[in-house]
Amino acid sequence: MKTSVDSIVYGDFVATMDPENPVIENGAVAIDQGYFCAVGSKRDVEARFTSTTKFSGQDRIVLPGLINGHTHATMTLFRGYADDLSLKEWLEEHIFPLEAAVLSPEVVEIGTRLACWEMLCGGTTSFADMYMFHEEIANVVDEVGIRAWVAATIANVPRNDAKNMDDQWLQALEFVQKWSKRNTTVHPILAGHSIYTLDQQELIELRDLANQLDVPVHIHLSETQFEVDYAKKHYQSTPIRFLDNIGFFDNPVITAHVVWPQDGEIEILANKNVAAIHNPSSNAKLASGLSPVSAMLEHGVCVGLGTDGTASNNDLDLWEEMRLATFLQKLNAMNPTELPAHQTLEMATTNGASAFGATHNLGKLKEGFCADLIQVELRNAHQLPIYDVFSHLVYTTHIHDVVNVFVNGRILLKDREPTTIDVAKLRTDVARMTKEIRSIRK
Amino acid sequence: MKTSVDSIVYGDFVATMDPENPVIENGAVAIDQGYFCAVGSKRDVEARFTSTTKFSGQDRIVLPGLINGHTHATMTLFRGYADDLSLKEWLEEHIFPLEAAVLSPEVVEIGTRLACWEMLCGGTTSFADMYMFHEEIANVVDEVGIRAWVAATIANVPRNDAKNMDDQWLQALEFVQKWSKRNTTVHPILAGHSIYTLDQQELIELRDLANQLDVPVHIHLSETQFEVDYAKKHYQSTPIRFLDNIGFFDNPVITAHVVWPQDGEIEILANKNVAAIHNPSSNAKLASGLSPVSAMLEHGVCVGLGTDGTASNNDLDLWEEMRLATFLQKLNAMNPTELPAHQTLEMATTNGASAFGATHNLGKLKEGFCADLIQVELRNAHQLPIYDVFSHLVYTTHIHDVVNVFVNGRILLKDREPTTIDVAKLRTDVARMTKEIRSIRK
Repeated sequence: MKTSVDSIVYGDFVATMDPENPVIENGAVAIDQGYFCAVGSKRDVEARFTSTTKFSGQDRIVLPGLINGHTHATMTLFRGYADDLSLKEWLEEHIFPLEAAVLSPEVVEIGTRLACWEMLCGGTTSFADMYMFHEEIANVVDEVGIRAWVAATIANVPRNDAKNMDDQWLQALEFVQKWSKRNTTVHPILAGHSIYTLDQQELIELRDLANQLDVPVHIHLSETQFEVDYAKKHYQSTPIRFLDNIGFFDNPVITAHVVWPQDGEIEILANKNVAAIHNPSSNAKLASGLSPVSAMLEHGVCVGLGTDGTASNNDLDLWEEMRLATFLQKLNAMNPTELPAHQTLEMATTNGASAFGATHNLGKLKEGFCADLIQVELRNAHQLPIYDVFSHLVYTTHIHDVVNVFVNGRILLKDREPTTIDVAKLRTDVARMTKEIRSIRK
Repeated sequence: MKTSVDSIVYGDFVATMDPENPVIENGAVAIDQGYFCAVGSKRDVEARFTSTTKFSGQDRIVLPGLINGHTHATMTLFRGYADDLSLKEWLEEHIFPLEAAVLSPEVVEIGTRLACWEMLCGGTTSFADMYMFHEEIANVVDEVGIRAWVAATIANVPRNDAKNMDDQWLQALEFVQKWSKRNTTVHPILAGHSIYTLDQQELIELRDLANQLDVPVHIHLSETQFEVDYAKKHYQSTPIRFLDNIGFFDNPVITAHVVWPQDGEIEILANKNVAAIHNPSSNAKLASGLSPVSAMLEHGVCVGLGTDGTASNNDLDLWEEMRLATFLQKLNAMNPTELPAHQTLEMATTNGASAFGATHNLGKLKEGFCADLIQVELRNAHQLPIYDVFSHLVYTTHIHDVVNVFVNGRILLKDREPTTIDVAKLRTDVARMTKEIRSIRK
């Protein structure tokens, strides 16, 4: 007798990202209680399972949801606010003053909700967020049902959500303790902004708090030449080596950017199991530089993919990041075989999961894993014809090809419409906030 | 009394690409007999013109149709056929044998029609095509109503559409003469494949035929290091200098790629008014190299934008090309102010028009110009909020944001559906062809 399950999702192609079971033609996944209970051929899955909730797989690819390993969701409200500027001018004359002027719980809620809508539309089921007002971010993530590693971020700079550093530390502790106890899609973590906004003692304190709370730390690292110069000047070292020397990598650490690793620093990341999130659009648009992704992968560093915030991207589109990632590595090596399609897709799925310590339950379509998955449609002009599933996903798929999105087996985007976001209200909220932001724009 | 016109198209923003009249908020264009008769504010246009055919501009940007300056439309049937391979292996072991095995009038017709569908969906209103079976390509372009510079291409290689070189020359002559007389959106031109598939005498003959027929010549040029080495070995020169020495630039010439201009060669292009079409995705994916676009623009070279064929891209998406173009120049110069959004959009509109000698009637929304225009929607998550029209168009717009597309004032894409292509039949045709192509795939 067949077992009844919550839902069965079909696909002309099921791209599992599981090396033992890579692409299943005419496949299906059975989902129950938020987990996959079967991943296989349509025939095999239907022989064992039945459901009253089925999702057609005609002209569709099923694959794991994409994982955006580094972003600042709130900043989606600042998309296109200031472009084509030097990093210093962009940050100091536009972004910082804007944040000081407008950041409030409401702005963070609306910006995060807008980001969640955009990410779901593009097939992103998990993201890592580093920003202020983490409590508000976590509440929106919980409400929407998308998965996120939400960081309580420590940065020794003036900010609207904390009175002083003591307040920051206390908030971080309470945030992680509170959300760790809840059974939601919010995974609380810690973040340090960078080695130039925290001093050595603060970085050590962050390491100790992470150890005490047993959570990973997310940090911007080796992003710019400025940062390398800063480490040399202040610590007579280089950014990654400096953090290694103070034992910062004794706990799990997920770095963002890693554009400028110096001699021996890639080896440190590999040896200490430090993950790196690559943000090609942001690094290109701000001219931060070209990250040596291929070299990091060769050394065994877990490299995931991120969009960074929309203020420097200007969207949350991991399909575009995948293309740019492989194009840049091919160009850099002058070798078209660098970072082939399948490996690039791994960065946006399995590697993202591994980076955040979820190797065993996220990033693959596999029995027992969390049912985070998406369906991509193959009916549009640019998806015809098809010879290779991974080539299609990496080289031609667009956000709008994503039809359905599931997190923990729950459908959050259905026929391209979000099920847990009131889009009409959100549009109104965004329009109101934008008017305010426009009024203070130079 | 108001003049009645064929149609009026509105936009919350009208991005004209006309320096005298850059962005009109709450604007409109009036179209009659295929031309713009007014471009201005809604109030001004409505004061002078009326129409029974109006297109709403709410949450929409109106701008000139995009111009794809270099592609091989037929190859859309080969999308994703062979990826992540070296250029030599890709061409010699996959593409050439495939073309020899399958190319026929029918394959070219179906491939070109699929490409036209894809381009219209993405807001491309004009393209330049370099391929074989030019008569079939021209017929499809004429039938669809999209605008194209269709080249009769000369290449001294075995091909399925010509018995020998004499046949190629005769076909080219007849093709240009025939289509020059017709009043269609097909603009016949000549093409030479490259300096390594035509010898010096053939290149001179091509120059003379172009002069006799008064049409420009399209040619792949300075694409790879191989080509530079070839010129050194065979002509003791460099590719651009060699063509200059044989007077190839005495007629208008539109080059494609120009990745490896050598010392003094950018100056030659500028002095001889030779246009260059930049194909960033193809150059990156095949690891051909990074074109010095900023340097060419600084020297006054007219640089347009192209996708190349989908066999090496893998789509016909100029929005993606724009982003990649600016990102690569910013990274290359380590300067985020390189190739700002507006200048990048110029490459895909006005520069493309100028490259093909249509400076005075294409590429801008301007009174008297051909009414080739598109409407881009601002309602999707990734387009909210908006502070800057050009930033939105270059950094976040996707093919699916394009709602309506007009060529010569005729609507060819309406609410995202083509009006002159039988999509159901085309899907069936593509499926049939793909089956045949799959059967011979290694």
